[in-house]
Amino acid sequence: MRILVLGGDGYLGWPTAMHFSRRGDDVFVVDDFTRRACHTERGTDSLTPVSSLMDRVAAWRQIAGRDIGYEVLDICDFPKLRALMKDFQPDTIIHYGEIPSAPYSMIDRDHAWETQRNNVEGTLNVLFAMREVAPHAHLVKLGTMGEYGTPNIDIEEGYIDIEHNGRTDRLPFPKLPGSFYHLSKVHDTHNIHFACRIWGMRATDLNQGVVYGIHTDDTEVDDRLLTRFDYDEIFGTALNRFCVQAVIGHPITVYGSGHQTRGFLNIRDTIQCIELATRNPAGAGEMRVFNQFTQTFSVMQLAEEVVEAARHLGYNATLSRVDNPRVELEEHYYNPTHTGLLDLGLEPRLLSEELIETVLHTVERFKDRVNPRAIDPATRWR
Amino acid sequence: MRILVLGGDGYLGWPTAMHFSRRGDDVFVVDDFTRRACHTERGTDSLTPVSSLMDRVAAWRQIAGRDIGYEVLDICDFPKLRALMKDFQPDTIIHYGEIPSAPYSMIDRDHAWETQRNNVEGTLNVLFAMREVAPHAHLVKLGTMGEYGTPNIDIEEGYIDIEHNGRTDRLPFPKLPGSFYHLSKVHDTHNIHFACRIWGMRATDLNQGVVYGIHTDDTEVDDRLLTRFDYDEIFGTALNRFCVQAVIGHPITVYGSGHQTRGFLNIRDTIQCIELATRNPAGAGEMRVFNQFTQTFSVMQLAEEVVEAARHLGYNATLSRVDNPRVELEEHYYNPTHTGLLDLGLEPRLLSEELIETVLHTVERFKDRVNPRAIDPATRWR
Repeated sequence: MRILVLGGDGYLGWPTAMHFSRRGDDVFVVDDFTRRACHTERGTDSLTPVSSLMDRVAAWRQIAGRDIGYEVLDICDFPKLRALMKDFQPDTIIHYGEIPSAPYSMIDRDHAWETQRNNVEGTLNVLFAMREVAPHAHLVKLGTMGEYGTPNIDIEEGYIDIEHNGRTDRLPFPKLPGSFYHLSKVHDTHNIHFACRIWGMRATDLNQGVVYGIHTDDTEVDDRLLTRFDYDEIFGTALNRFCVQAVIGHPITVYGSGHQTRGFLNIRDTIQCIELATRNPAGAGEMRVFNQFTQTFSVMQLAEEVVEAARHLGYNATLSRVDNPRVELEEHYYNPTHTGLLDLGLEPRLLSEELIETVLHTVERFKDRVNPRAIDPATRWR
Repeated sequence: MRILVLGGDGYLGWPTAMHFSRRGDDVFVVDDFTRRACHTERGTDSLTPVSSLMDRVAAWRQIAGRDIGYEVLDICDFPKLRALMKDFQPDTIIHYGEIPSAPYSMIDRDHAWETQRNNVEGTLNVLFAMREVAPHAHLVKLGTMGEYGTPNIDIEEGYIDIEHNGRTDRLPFPKLPGSFYHLSKVHDTHNIHFACRIWGMRATDLNQGVVYGIHTDDTEVDDRLLTRFDYDEIFGTALNRFCVQAVIGHPITVYGSGHQTRGFLNIRDTIQCIELATRNPAGAGEMRVFNQFTQTFSVMQLAEEVVEAARHLGYNATLSRVDNPRVELEEHYYNPTHTGLLDLGLEPRLLSEELIETVLHTVERFKDRVNPRAIDPATRWR
């Protein structure tokens, strides 16, 4: 297949590009390094030293003997995106090309709008470019479980059958997003749904949980193929952040009660899910939605798992509850459905102490790169 | 009260400004003339000759003896908007300041994005400016019934109680918007809801039906106080457009079967609703939603009413079904709730032949200004 990876320089994008390339697909990567620029702005960086995209592609050619095409391109530049898609003629467009941080979007008005502008305009451009030059391609778009928030009912996969006053309809699942970033994904979802309904496009919207882990089969082969690993308060996510804290002797910071429960998955399962969605495309006119995670944990549970694993490696890790910088329910019901990808054949790699130890060992290798200033929460919702 | 009217140069904005000014409120109008510029771009114009904002304000001072303050300001310019709001300290912000056309948003990618950018960025700026300099003000925001689309269940006012697998929650009503414009309003609604939830803001989201009519108590006093009246395929709405077609001898163009059913209201009732929402503000932290219309009609019913009224005035009006340029259900269930504003005291002026005749008479006065090229639908959804 011809696979276009938007945001192919990122945490998930680069491993995705290598994965499909290794499988023999024709892969083309687009990125404008927004994530790297955001880190430069915040004075932070990936824990792992990340090669430039050019060096990654060269290393991949040397190691795997396969070419990954690439272009440095902002997908908000519509004429350039359209020209690229016309030229490459993708079968599948895997769209990671968005600013991915809730705290970043909550810094102030400029960051809120920049997140929404970048994400919504980019996705709108993808839809219009598909319509004009690749109408049969399948869009695989990364959304987030955070679009749903924490309603008091079971969360279905994108749609819900509602019976009301004796009539029924299957309608988009109501959304309670928790940041301007999560809102940008909700806006995307509505725009994509509309494009599918009126233009007959095919799309899969993947409402992904929190991804953890540092390695895929390809990243662990050679340091030049490493993917990024964020641990700072802006871009780091729960488990990854906790592992860095444990190794550098910083208390593991749990926001609020820690009873907030979320869906999680291993980075290797992200790749598996993306592959399943890609090999089993949505039908014409369909926006198919999957909830992409394998397990739910409370933040406190995760923190305790990291403490336990770290102690086995000789680290005297401690927990520290800090004032919750976010506005979110700390005690809530949470039972999201996630059967769609399992039905397609997903075989989850559940969280294990072994996985946490692998992450901890990798963190150890790069711990001199940690900037302790960047760990405590500084961005507040109120 | 101190009332800030965003988009105060428009069809509804200008009559709203005069209405509150006459009632003794301190009114300040903001506009950047986007609507006038869009008309210039499309080579169209209001049927009624519309004075400049400066001349309107001067005429109002002369006729009503009251001052309406104004500033030519793009609300997408955040520092300027914030400075203005800090200075004026509004009690109520009535927000009409958006590009209001579904067809305009469907012209191409640039118009789709310009509509979403302008509307979403402007509203986001209003929210951040309120948070920073007017946190106790009440936002009265114009949405549209078109956010809901035509689901197969009764449409509630903004929220719906869902029972699912034995649990219940009151959640945002699912949305099926029918154009990139309608989508922009859905995006706004989600952003506003979030701001109310996390910052404790007060907002009323008015999901308005299609407005018809040409006069309010203030516009009919003097031609310099007239409001705009759009009849073209881009900005004209059903009944107003039909009246112009009847007077100039153009067949009344019904899109598709004409069985599409929508909520409608008289422009005078828009003013009444805005007043009711303003005098009875939402609570802190609440995004209150009202469905703002007084009657539902099918497009065909409306067209037939215009034919009938026009015949009584001696016009041989005819109906013409044209291919529907939009993608929308032409046969559908439609039963939206609209009790919230009635409960606040709304006394609807229902559609009458007399009202249609009044519109027809005003159209007659200005019929030499009609550009026949602008009437037939040229903008297509597919």
